[in-house]
Amino acid sequence: MLRDRFLKTRNRTQEICSPLKTEDYSVQPMADASPPKWHLAHTTWFFEQFVLVPHKPNYAIYHADFAYLFNSYYNTLGDRVLRPNRGLMTRPLVTEVMDYRRHVTENVAELLDRDDCPAAVFELVELGINHEEQHQELLAYDIKCLFGNQPTFPLYGRVYNLPNETHEQEFIPVKEGLYEVGYDGDGFHFDIEKGRHKVYLEAFEISNRLVTNQEYLEFIQAGGYQNFNLWHAEGWEFINENDIKAPMYWHEIEGEWFRYCMEGLVAVNPVEPVMHLSYYEAAAFAEWTDLRLPTEFEWEVASHSFTWGKLWEWTSSAFLPYPRFEKKAGAVGEYNGKFMVNQKVLRGASVSTPQGHSRPTYRNFFHPHMRWQFAGLRLVRS
Amino acid sequence: MLRDRFLKTRNRTQEICSPLKTEDYSVQPMADASPPKWHLAHTTWFFEQFVLVPHKPNYAIYHADFAYLFNSYYNTLGDRVLRPNRGLMTRPLVTEVMDYRRHVTENVAELLDRDDCPAAVFELVELGINHEEQHQELLAYDIKCLFGNQPTFPLYGRVYNLPNETHEQEFIPVKEGLYEVGYDGDGFHFDIEKGRHKVYLEAFEISNRLVTNQEYLEFIQAGGYQNFNLWHAEGWEFINENDIKAPMYWHEIEGEWFRYCMEGLVAVNPVEPVMHLSYYEAAAFAEWTDLRLPTEFEWEVASHSFTWGKLWEWTSSAFLPYPRFEKKAGAVGEYNGKFMVNQKVLRGASVSTPQGHSRPTYRNFFHPHMRWQFAGLRLVRS
Amino acid sequence: MLRDRFLKTRNRTQEICSPLKTEDYSVQPMADASPPKWHLAHTTWFFEQFVLVPHKPNYAIYHADFAYLFNSYYNTLGDRVLRPNRGLMTRPLVTEVMDYRRHVTENVAELLDRDDCPAAVFELVELGINHEEQHQELLAYDIKCLFGNQPTFPLYGRVYNLPNETHEQEFIPVKEGLYEVGYDGDGFHFDIEKGRHKVYLEAFEISNRLVTNQEYLEFIQAGGYQNFNLWHAEGWEFINENDIKAPMYWHEIEGEWFRYCMEGLVAVNPVEPVMHLSYYEAAAFAEWTDLRLPTEFEWEVASHSFTWGKLWEWTSSAFLPYPRFEKKAGAVGEYNGKFMVNQKVLRGASVSTPQGHSRPTYRNFFHPHMRWQFAGLRLVRS
Amino acid sequence: MLRDRFLKTRNRTQEICSPLKTEDYSVQPMADASPPKWHLAHTTWFFEQFVLVPHKPNYAIYHADFAYLFNSYYNTLGDRVLRPNRGLMTRPLVTEVMDYRRHVTENVAELLDRDDCPAAVFELVELGINHEEQHQELLAYDIKCLFGNQPTFPLYGRVYNLPNETHEQEFIPVKEGLYEVGYDGDGFHFDIEKGRHKVYLEAFEISNRLVTNQEYLEFIQAGGYQNFNLWHAEGWEFINENDIKAPMYWHEIEGEWFRYCMEGLVAVNPVEPVMHLSYYEAAAFAEWTDLRLPTEFEWEVASHSFTWGKLWEWTSSAFLPYPRFEKKAGAVGEYNGKFMVNQKVLRGASVSTPQGHSRPTYRNFFHPHMRWQFAGLRLVRS
Repeated sequence: MLRDRFLKTRNRTQEICSPLKTEDYSVQPMADASPPKWHLAHTTWFFEQFVLVPHKPNYAIYHADFAYLFNSYYNTLGDRVLRPNRGLMTRPLVTEVMDYRRHVTENVAELLDRDDCPAAVFELVELGINHEEQHQELLAYDIKCLFGNQPTFPLYGRVYNLPNETHEQEFIPVKEGLYEVGYDGDGFHFDIEKGRHKVYLEAFEISNRLVTNQEYLEFIQAGGYQNFNLWHAEGWEFINENDIKAPMYWHEIEGEWFRYCMEGLVAVNPVEPVMHLSYYEAAAFAEWTDLRLPTEFEWEVASHSFTWGKLWEWTSSAFLPYPRFEKKAGAVGEYNGKFMVNQKVLRGASVSTPQGHSRPTYRNFFHPHMRWQFAGLRLVRS
Repeated sequence: MLRDRFLKTRNRTQEICSPLKTEDYSVQPMADASPPKWHLAHTTWFFEQFVLVPHKPNYAIYHADFAYLFNSYYNTLGDRVLRPNRGLMTRPLVTEVMDYRRHVTENVAELLDRDDCPAAVFELVELGINHEEQHQELLAYDIKCLFGNQPTFPLYGRVYNLPNETHEQEFIPVKEGLYEVGYDGDGFHFDIEKGRHKVYLEAFEISNRLVTNQEYLEFIQAGGYQNFNLWHAEGWEFINENDIKAPMYWHEIEGEWFRYCMEGLVAVNPVEPVMHLSYYEAAAFAEWTDLRLPTEFEWEVASHSFTWGKLWEWTSSAFLPYPRFEKKAGAVGEYNGKFMVNQKVLRGASVSTPQGHSRPTYRNFFHPHMRWQFAGLRLVRS
Repeated sequence: MLRDRFLKTRNRTQEICSPLKTEDYSVQPMADASPPKWHLAHTTWFFEQFVLVPHKPNYAIYHADFAYLFNSYYNTLGDRVLRPNRGLMTRPLVTEVMDYRRHVTENVAELLDRDDCPAAVFELVELGINHEEQHQELLAYDIKCLFGNQPTFPLYGRVYNLPNETHEQEFIPVKEGLYEVGYDGDGFHFDIEKGRHKVYLEAFEISNRLVTNQEYLEFIQAGGYQNFNLWHAEGWEFINENDIKAPMYWHEIEGEWFRYCMEGLVAVNPVEPVMHLSYYEAAAFAEWTDLRLPTEFEWEVASHSFTWGKLWEWTSSAFLPYPRFEKKAGAVGEYNGKFMVNQKVLRGASVSTPQGHSRPTYRNFFHPHMRWQFAGLRLVRS
Repeated sequence: MLRDRFLKTRNRTQEICSPLKTEDYSVQPMADASPPKWHLAHTTWFFEQFVLVPHKPNYAIYHADFAYLFNSYYNTLGDRVLRPNRGLMTRPLVTEVMDYRRHVTENVAELLDRDDCPAAVFELVELGINHEEQHQELLAYDIKCLFGNQPTFPLYGRVYNLPNETHEQEFIPVKEGLYEVGYDGDGFHFDIEKGRHKVYLEAFEISNRLVTNQEYLEFIQAGGYQNFNLWHAEGWEFINENDIKAPMYWHEIEGEWFRYCMEGLVAVNPVEPVMHLSYYEAAAFAEWTDLRLPTEFEWEVASHSFTWGKLWEWTSSAFLPYPRFEKKAGAVGEYNGKFMVNQKVLRGASVSTPQGHSRPTYRNFFHPHMRWQFAGLRLVRS
């Protein structure tokens, strides 16, 4: 069954890329994004490096260059003539990367088939699947970023469309009290969500739906982007330095608002949830409504009482370790802990999150200025 | 009595500047610092703007330029030909600023003397005193920054020396449980520490003393600044981009470490607490020891059981609002809330903090990369 | 015959790209370079815009997007939702650009065939051919830049290899006197070389060969990059800020020098002329030898007495207008005049210059810090 | 007589500073400017370093710190704990620098008095006087920059006012021919103007007066700053990135133009010559008039036929060495040659140039983007 999930995951990554043309694979649209080819190769390198090299007898590295080029853990690496630069790598070719994928997929599958396959392999393959699922989501962000910044607005397809948010808004009350949060089961989970622990919450009420484009348009029209009282000092600087007056991918054309979605440039749909906001914008919007964003624990405790999963949801919580958090030794330990400063937690999942990848205790995180991820917001009142 | 404290506070600001020469008042040593003259004038403007203008009958603005130049709340201001630039203002002269101080001090004192002095004035003067105390502390940082970056290392005096940290280290245990934190008295306090609320803490032990120069030197000598595994990704970038290999004001001269203290360049004293670290360095040091920094609530709950007040202490907590926090309306509301992103809480007080200014619930905050404030660190183990 | 040259030129541009893979066409390796696809499309747009649109009856623009995307004369353009960004354009596809090329080539050829083809067309096609030849040369630079910055050093082929510089060095004397410089014939020439005029030259002697890798290595080994006395102040800043210690594409590996040429990474050949130097480096080298670079007029006057054409040659002359220079009106006038500040003249031609494109009066120009063009240097003594 | 000129020069530098307050001496208003105190000390260091140290028997350095702090020839210097940073040096105090001046002035005067004073000293003192005169002019620029960027526009005095340019405009014809340029006398001159040599000039006509504010206002009102066809590509970028729409120190207030002159903010006087333009602006203005700037040689040859000396005049010539130019060995050789790239020659003199400092062969030079020097422009037609 793990073998099945492994093969499905490997396959789905390629399906996500199927609307792409060869030209689309090697270009990096901004520093925070990676070219699609890099995602395809890096997820493969992960299985090769952490599963095949240590656990498959007599496994020979597929290609020394690939091991070097598609490693994201640069800090441990020795010197070479040139540093890999994701945005310049026109080589290896897409077909060569696909061959690399096939080779590694087959070798891992074969290893999983063996009777004597060690338990550590199952654990590492599970980690590799979850790692690849994270890159599947990043692929959606990065492809949108690549297409959405070209004046021709190439078409990807309708896969990532959002359902409308048409049900009546209600605020669901949660009582004050001591709650338990954090992961506590037997399934796969990341180190950062582990450490079931108690938190005390004051009473609050949380909306049963996300903020919509219509509501956000009202904020824009009410001068929200011009009223510094609503903004964090850094947020005010951010929108002014970058001349930001609307969510990412929005364009005002002759007085009407359009947005690039993956089907091209379309009129903004008022009943869709608003997305592609920085934390600064989400917080300014909340300030304007006199409500606020939830903390990550309020969200987790209340999450069984509303529908979530269309968009990641900004919380007001900083991304910090849970009690008893410990970095694992070695390269795998680099995974999450080193990002625990200046980032905000997002909870939930998005239409681009692989099925079953997320859960109520899952902690996603981004810098407050980032906008290309599929994120929206939900309001809370005390 | 408030009148007395007011006069003493006004006086003390000038005493802090008494070792300065006229040349020292107008120069801004870095973007985060302000010239001493600006502090002298801005604290005065605060009393004029918020106390005298609204509450003293017939009070006339001392000088329209001063009201414009020494306002830090630029965002509400109308246009003018040129924006004030703190580091360029050689005018008004130091003596003119001192005259301005005297004028405003006398007018406020006179207002406080009146039988019909409205209650709002007492509250605003209290706020103004606390505001000026904060600038007294910043003055110490900024003067040190100004002197410590000149190759001649000018002498200020021994006022801000730190006592040695020679008592035996012990770890004080605190039991798990539900604790109350936040300000809950009748005295003056800031909006950000208000909102007494419950937090659940797991058991921990906290050191009875600060980390010393000796301990930090061992970290340096063990290659702490070269081992990326100890650092946040942003911290690693920060020390490498800025070529940082020791705390601010430290200089290695022919194999020995010296530091600029306000008495000039002196050999690093091993039993003094280490200071002028960024949060990144404090966290990397803690990682190296296999211990950790306290959260702000662990610090607050344990603070009655150790001595504090020599140096501000970095905590691992992000600076975020307490439950029920609300920004005040108008310009005073700009005070703190707009900084609640990407900053870390520091607790305690420093040798440059005015007597009585701080308390166990006091929340100071700085960006993780800042080093010029008087801050050190205390370790905790779970 | 013009028709023939036109077709050959169009064809040769595509031949230059024939070793490329689809992935290579869309990536921009640095701000000064363009992706190969852009060159292919922009040279086509030039013929469409300046020849077909005004002169071919009933010609319809091939594709509105192409006219927008491949125009380098942005300043005259109206607004659009997004600005084209050469490095992001994965679309149109390579095949679509090739179709565009074919369409425009056929239409121009057909126009040239007509009996009533207006004289203006011949002139504009001649300009378009020369424009495309300039882009053929830039294609060589940009492809080398793209390949030479990838850690895998892809192979292009041996087309652009340099012959050795093995003949005995001699200094050819030129007498003082009044000379005429500038273009004075009937053939095609650029506006900037026109204006035959007199210049007075003092006596000088010019080397019959270019500086070699061997000579440049001696400069490196003598500490040339460490001796600020040899450098312009800006040059010293440039090499230090960019950590430059050798020509572009050179790598020191275990004590030996290698360079990326278009056949891969090879050992530096001592008898080849040195290339890929900035003007700063060329001038510092000359200073070190106690000789100097020629002025552009010294070069032009002496050029009949030595062999040239392997590499462009840096001169000490600033790129400035000749007497009686006038910008043409309209978009074509933008061509050269707007670059007449802060650039240096290079004379000669390189192995990547199309046959017949250059001549002794030809003036090439680059900023002093640029290194990716195929340039070397020749020495002069007074 | 040299002794007299020496003492007068030393004295005049201090007179230029006499309207300053102590606060004004240490602040650096922009990277290209220096604080007045630095000019006072650096010109003194020059005499100490090059005259007293090598030539006065038993002369002891006045203060090791000053020798370190006020040296502009950093590149030859050994390491120290901190690099001097002109804008941070509040110490030494103004009075200490004045003491240093007095000490060095007296020692040089005493040396000049001696019967056995070596000839080399006279030459070096002459160089030192000319060096100090250059700094007198820079002092005027830097003080204006310091005062003109403060919102209070401090008053300096009327010393540097310009006379009106009211005489009828005429164009003076100069015949084509071979002319001699460059310095050829016995008096003091800089290395860069030496090397009398022949240049061939085509016929031209040069205006007998400078361009006025009125003429420049017409250019502004005609949309000169919005018409990219008039600009060098770099100039267009420069004005747009820096949001430049008028000369430096100009402010549009309620539809009227004012400028900061050293008497405060005054209405723009239409008949004064326009000043504080970058080369880019001067060239764009000339382009708009369909005339052009002179070359430095056209200016030199014609200079006897018009009045000059109110403002430096931009020429179209790049700052390049004359034939037979050679850098002197040692620190003095650093003086000029290292600036011979990316700068433009200005000819003439300004109201802030010391009497007798300039001459028709004098070559001043600035980068094309610089605007704080006292420069205007004169037109030429072919």
